[in-house]
Amino acid sequence: KRVEDYDTFIFDCDGVLWRGADKIPGASDTVKKLMDMGKNVYFVTNNSTKSRKQYVSKIQKHAIPIKDSTQILSSAFAAASYLKHVRKFEKKALVIGHEGIELELKEHGIESVSAGAMLQNKQWTIPELLKFKVDPDVGVVVVGMDLEFTYSKSALAALHMQKNKGCFLLSTNQDYTFPSEGGMFLPGAGAAVAHVEAACEMKAVNVGKPESFMFNALKTMNPGIDLKRAIMVGDRLNTDMRFGNQGGASTLLVLTGVTSEERLKEPIENEKERPSFVIKSVADLFK
Amino acid sequence: KRVEDYDTFIFDCDGVLWRGADKIPGASDTVKKLMDMGKNVYFVTNNSTKSRKQYVSKIQKHAIPIKDSTQILSSAFAAASYLKHVRKFEKKALVIGHEGIELELKEHGIESVSAGAMLQNKQWTIPELLKFKVDPDVGVVVVGMDLEFTYSKSALAALHMQKNKGCFLLSTNQDYTFPSEGGMFLPGAGAAVAHVEAACEMKAVNVGKPESFMFNALKTMNPGIDLKRAIMVGDRLNTDMRFGNQGGASTLLVLTGVTSEERLKEPIENEKERPSFVIKSVADLFK
Repeated sequence: KRVEDYDTFIFDCDGVLWRGADKIPGASDTVKKLMDMGKNVYFVTNNSTKSRKQYVSKIQKHAIPIKDSTQILSSAFAAASYLKHVRKFEKKALVIGHEGIELELKEHGIESVSAGAMLQNKQWTIPELLKFKVDPDVGVVVVGMDLEFTYSKSALAALHMQKNKGCFLLSTNQDYTFPSEGGMFLPGAGAAVAHVEAACEMKAVNVGKPESFMFNALKTMNPGIDLKRAIMVGDRLNTDMRFGNQGGASTLLVLTGVTSEERLKEPIENEKERPSFVIKSVADLFK
Repeated sequence: KRVEDYDTFIFDCDGVLWRGADKIPGASDTVKKLMDMGKNVYFVTNNSTKSRKQYVSKIQKHAIPIKDSTQILSSAFAAASYLKHVRKFEKKALVIGHEGIELELKEHGIESVSAGAMLQNKQWTIPELLKFKVDPDVGVVVVGMDLEFTYSKSALAALHMQKNKGCFLLSTNQDYTFPSEGGMFLPGAGAAVAHVEAACEMKAVNVGKPESFMFNALKTMNPGIDLKRAIMVGDRLNTDMRFGNQGGASTLLVLTGVTSEERLKEPIENEKERPSFVIKSVADLFK
């Protein structure tokens, strides 16, 4: 199959268009060429630390062309959109994560408070936690990537869950780790989600990849998209390939991120994670 | 069956002999009577925050009679004993938890460093974490209850796991929550374990209840114990009753802790969690 067979290109970002702070050679040219050809280009990321507007700057910083934030589907946006459109949520959200989540909630008209601010960014003792005045307006706890995750934040989530009837748990994504410079992996949003799920003895609803929520949002916002002519480009089998396949698109795996050539010599046991196509790098898309 | 039919009484503590800061009426008298009758009395707790020596004071503070720390099996002790006797461990332990774990490791001649101290009790940025000098002598990460659990501690565990070959993960216990004053539940050791397991993409070996390690340690240290004449007294089905049943003892459930009378009206689906006997409180043991 060839580039001409697709109208819509959905790119994962980290590991595909850049890797941490490093550019991936040719990524910028490939995206520019696709946009010049009039293709629909979207960016889909589980990164929940930034709002879509902030993410536009990040994409531009990596010299990837983008028109505006409507081309971006991010997990912080997904959390807000899910609450607004699926849950018709009208209460307050308690957020464990960085500002991207709160900014997206605000854009969607949803009131929120961050666990860090509520706890005055300190660790609390058990007696202090038990005396904590739970906010009766909180109806959901949203958990994303949080470099300042603490026991107290998880306890705060658990207390709200126990005191506020109907309060539920939402995760922006559940990636256990994320790849960093030097080939090292650091804890991802999924680690915080695991702590809070245990503390609340409750499973989180997940809106990030590989769940189909962002795919459905894309289709809802762009009813004209023909899925037979859409392709998901990513570096992870269990998130990106699964996400694209479950969403009904074709899938293209690149080897510039998490998945190595060695890995592909082993069998892919889950058919949902099998890529339609494999290339070394997005730079090779037109080869 | 009657008290006379048992020589060995193994008590869970919180929810059985006391509840948080509150005494359970009659608990002190019951234990005193058993010890006066010459019964073997042991205290088995998943609490990892204190060493056995410190736990003696806690037991005495609740007016429960105890001779010395050899009557105590705690999960911090279990972690140290497992490393020493099962793993013949000779490297250094990285500890995520309170001082009880480090004190027990020291008693067993095992060198340790706490994640809090290693991180100077602050939260680190990603670049700082990636530059962190991993200690090559660390061969295990031990995770227990930690009120000061942070993302950075979990990242430190993950970095050591990736850099030190053969490094493994050990949990003192995996209780997701623990009951506190006012009927509220706060996050337990299991929540931190879940975060670290996700971050390290690795399952922890668990030595706390319901795993049989502490039961085996009890039998090893006291070869004369006749299991047919031993009974485990606890308040939780999925830890205490399971622990006692798997260990080959009889089991006695009390209703002063986590398990309510209402719960017992529902079926017990796992036979391993079924108590041999049920009484309202340890105060009723001689009734």
